[in-house]
Amino acid sequence: MNNLNEKEKMLSGEIYDASDKHLIKERNIAKDLCFEYNHLQPSKLKERKALIKKLFGKTGKMFHIEQPFYCDYGYNIEIGENFYTNVNVVILDCAKVTFGDNVMIAPNCGFYTAGHPFDVEQRNKALEYAYPITVGNNVWIGAGCSILPGVTIGDNTVIGAGSVVTKDIPANVLAVGNPCKVIREL
Amino acid sequence: MNNLNEKEKMLSGEIYDASDKHLIKERNIAKDLCFEYNHLQPSKLKERKALIKKLFGKTGKMFHIEQPFYCDYGYNIEIGENFYTNVNVVILDCAKVTFGDNVMIAPNCGFYTAGHPFDVEQRNKALEYAYPITVGNNVWIGAGCSILPGVTIGDNTVIGAGSVVTKDIPANVLAVGNPCKVIREL
Amino acid sequence: MNNLNEKEKMLSGEIYDASDKHLIKERNIAKDLCFEYNHLQPSKLKERKALIKKLFGKTGKMFHIEQPFYCDYGYNIEIGENFYTNVNVVILDCAKVTFGDNVMIAPNCGFYTAGHPFDVEQRNKALEYAYPITVGNNVWIGAGCSILPGVTIGDNTVIGAGSVVTKDIPANVLAVGNPCKVIREL
Repeated sequence: MNNLNEKEKMLSGEIYDASDKHLIKERNIAKDLCFEYNHLQPSKLKERKALIKKLFGKTGKMFHIEQPFYCDYGYNIEIGENFYTNVNVVILDCAKVTFGDNVMIAPNCGFYTAGHPFDVEQRNKALEYAYPITVGNNVWIGAGCSILPGVTIGDNTVIGAGSVVTKDIPANVLAVGNPCKVIREL
Repeated sequence: MNNLNEKEKMLSGEIYDASDKHLIKERNIAKDLCFEYNHLQPSKLKERKALIKKLFGKTGKMFHIEQPFYCDYGYNIEIGENFYTNVNVVILDCAKVTFGDNVMIAPNCGFYTAGHPFDVEQRNKALEYAYPITVGNNVWIGAGCSILPGVTIGDNTVIGAGSVVTKDIPANVLAVGNPCKVIREL
Repeated sequence: MNNLNEKEKMLSGEIYDASDKHLIKERNIAKDLCFEYNHLQPSKLKERKALIKKLFGKTGKMFHIEQPFYCDYGYNIEIGENFYTNVNVVILDCAKVTFGDNVMIAPNCGFYTAGHPFDVEQRNKALEYAYPITVGNNVWIGAGCSILPGVTIGDNTVIGAGSVVTKDIPANVLAVGNPCKVIREL
């Protein structure tokens, strides 16, 4: 079809083979780093910060990632200033996951860039796709939310607890529910 | 405005600064204790019990907290007799979280007393509020529920799996859904 | 009532005493194994595979269970070929939990065979019931789903993220929501 390798396909939104050896190797590196991070004593703040800087693609000066935290590659995660995630946040960063400044994420939230084809034959070959997730500035995401592939959430928006965000949510709104819908402007 | 320090404001339901040094120190202590708890071998039941007694504000004689368990301060959590939480329960106890006797909590539930202002300027200053959560006697909360700030759940009530409890739920009912609503009396 | 011991009652779908000493002992063994599994460095793939083979009732040759993973007994879990669970999956296997071939489970999913009586007196005696969960071949379960006691999910079906599956879902469909309902055939 084309000359892209599996990683290049993954990063460009094409169907790729998640069982590719190079991708597995990269996931193992990121998962070992997450494991190391999650086994650091919480009050060892300097060591924790250094590890996240090693893991993420880009960070600001001020951020705090509560443990445990889980991701797939790490290098696809880019965070702005004053980034905060509470416990048990999962970011499946097969595509880019980009956060603006002053973003707050409550416990048990997941950002899932990856999906699998509905076609069984394709799915069973470990073929999958990944679409970027983009979160604007000053966004607060409530507890237990799932953010699905390709979603953009606009600046200043608040996502209510327990939401499943399947489509883009504009700036300056309160949105909530499964599926997540705009309730009102803020 | 008043002469309360940040901790006093937090405990009295006023807007407070979550980045206050004393509060950060207290959270670090609690998070280190949770970390220690979550890294004890599960079958070391005596050591686990002792650690929870150190962490919580008040316990009964009989309780069992499956690992992992996460909280913010610990001292704001008060549990009655025969308290049980399954794996991966999160209690953000910025305000009091009080449980009666014979309470059962399924996996992946969260009790979130804390919230952030909708006003972006306030939110970005780490200002937040916390309202108490109260759970009566003989309550069973199903898997994957989120209990939001200020909620009271009455005696003998059952909350169905996957519920987001945004408002008070009375005694003696089955309630379920996102948002959680009463289905029938029990 | 009958001559079954508590484990036999549990496995046959009758009301049983979850505080039975033999059952507690078995859960402690499984929880120590899960703990050991969750504390293995992620890239130690051989050791991880060996532990899961020790823990589960039946496995295929190819499977991958991301850490952390939690279960109650382990021996009631039977998986087919090419089984995959992402991070933070919980299986409360008080009854059998059976997965076909080529099953993919996203992060933060829970399979809960156990329930408690609505009658408070019974519930407070630690009486509970467990009904088997059965997942067919080629099933993909999205992130953050809860699968409740007694549910069967048919071959080739996809369950959308954030679903609470309270009733059987047939083969070859896309189903989603809380409660989970069929959206369309695939």
